[in-house]
Amino acid sequence: MIYCAPMRPVVAVDLGGTNIRAAFYPNGEPPARSSASRLTQAAEGAPAVLDRIHDAIEALKIPEPARRTMAIGIGAPGPLDQVRGVVIHAPNLPGWEDVRLGEILRERWGCYVFVENDANMAVLGEWRFGSGRGAHHIVMLTLGTGIGGGIIVDDRLVRGAHGLAGELGHIPVQLDGPRCSCGQLGHLEALASGTAIARMVREQGGLTHAASTGEASAEEVAAAARAGDPVALSVLQTAAHALGAALAGLVHTFNPERIILGGGVARAGGPFLEDVKRSMFASLMDPAFGEGVDIIPSALGEEAALLGGLALVQTST
Amino acid sequence: MIYCAPMRPVVAVDLGGTNIRAAFYPNGEPPARSSASRLTQAAEGAPAVLDRIHDAIEALKIPEPARRTMAIGIGAPGPLDQVRGVVIHAPNLPGWEDVRLGEILRERWGCYVFVENDANMAVLGEWRFGSGRGAHHIVMLTLGTGIGGGIIVDDRLVRGAHGLAGELGHIPVQLDGPRCSCGQLGHLEALASGTAIARMVREQGGLTHAASTGEASAEEVAAAARAGDPVALSVLQTAAHALGAALAGLVHTFNPERIILGGGVARAGGPFLEDVKRSMFASLMDPAFGEGVDIIPSALGEEAALLGGLALVQTST
Repeated sequence: MIYCAPMRPVVAVDLGGTNIRAAFYPNGEPPARSSASRLTQAAEGAPAVLDRIHDAIEALKIPEPARRTMAIGIGAPGPLDQVRGVVIHAPNLPGWEDVRLGEILRERWGCYVFVENDANMAVLGEWRFGSGRGAHHIVMLTLGTGIGGGIIVDDRLVRGAHGLAGELGHIPVQLDGPRCSCGQLGHLEALASGTAIARMVREQGGLTHAASTGEASAEEVAAAARAGDPVALSVLQTAAHALGAALAGLVHTFNPERIILGGGVARAGGPFLEDVKRSMFASLMDPAFGEGVDIIPSALGEEAALLGGLALVQTST
Repeated sequence: MIYCAPMRPVVAVDLGGTNIRAAFYPNGEPPARSSASRLTQAAEGAPAVLDRIHDAIEALKIPEPARRTMAIGIGAPGPLDQVRGVVIHAPNLPGWEDVRLGEILRERWGCYVFVENDANMAVLGEWRFGSGRGAHHIVMLTLGTGIGGGIIVDDRLVRGAHGLAGELGHIPVQLDGPRCSCGQLGHLEALASGTAIARMVREQGGLTHAASTGEASAEEVAAAARAGDPVALSVLQTAAHALGAALAGLVHTFNPERIILGGGVARAGGPFLEDVKRSMFASLMDPAFGEGVDIIPSALGEEAALLGGLALVQTST
């Protein structure tokens, strides 16, 4: 990968269902000189959200010379058409159907705009500035409410024929297994996401030492497991078993150097990550496949997508 | 992908556990002007097999000018180091441990030599000359005794960090499922390979209309299913269910344009391929992922690896 314009000023934007975050990198390097965020207030529809994106960029107070030479890298929930910069459909953003996000930003700001799926932005950020630095072959999974994925092969993002690649949460690991949020059976997301962990805790009668009576978050389950809660331990083992098997499949498929796990449970460390590794090795056709693979937590967390916007511009221009 | 030397004379060699096959393409285009084959006689060890490779190339009777400008593309089993041209370990070839195949051929023939894994050769061949023509994103699975795989992303072979990528037969699809040839549980190969199909037929008491009393080949089971044999139908449905789920995972991962299925069962066509497609669609998170994907049998069959040798030279020089 060649960086043609490493010094170009970059504005990175992370458009999420809850927040719009923006950051300004005057020399194309972290840290950001300024940052800003706005509530997305997605229910108000696409035009209002677009105004808020402009507003967040305005709030960065980009000085005049940079304003003329900058480029924008923006991450949006998928699926989207990266080449045309169009958000085809955003599940968490009502009214976002075929929104020409790239064109709209280019007309408003008079600069190059690069649009990418948010999960792809996260792996770009980690690859360039986080846990993926120095690696050329990376698989990343982010364990949140759902499970997002991103793949780097030979220093290139795997986007697929229509930009839909990397939906690693929907890899089937258990034929006729539990129902996934997407409606199908036995996907990884139905066994190892925050939602799946909460469901399994509920099915087993709840945490013994529950902090609250509501739905247990994955972080709460992880904390309960560290305190010895038997339900938490059992559920996290089930999740780790499924995740380890999926990782073995990804190792056989990609032969990566590094697997990066994002999201609260993975970043909490502790026995979960060890269980995942053990399950992965138990599913490898040959230990040689696992020897060169590091499984490490995301270094950037919430910042991954913004730094991914910076990496996106650098690898596109 | 740029073809720098499309007119270069190419010798392609397919080194298998049973046969060594060689073909000569004087203008870098099929059909071959001459071809030759030798029995591998692998038990005699690496030096004897290497002599037979030279012998097969000699038998091509390559004329003098081509002999000075030709390049060799050779496919070999098992994990290998493509950059150094070393066969690290070939399960079906006794004594093949760290054999410097590229160097040995280069010294004997005085030309460029490119060495590649045989499953990768097959997908290269299909991509350039067979069922993959015109597609930039391809996943190929060959259903034989085992299940081999090869992946093309953006017109490039996915080799991974150490050339081990594409072992798609060892993707886990059934947690704690049947034992695979590699020793682990629930891999695709344990549910949809020829070996798995024969095992499941045996477990269900054999074919009703068995042609022989021995182990049923996948082709025999496919023929029996077409004749209405209930055991054959049930076993092939199980295999198609597992294969369809694995393909859904690969579609979510790669968003390919084309999935190519090689091997006798897949090429026989009939209800098996339809069952595979149905199972794949039933596992997709959104039908949109399947709309642009063609699932088609290999066009080249046994010729895929030789034509892959030709494609390998063309994409390497």
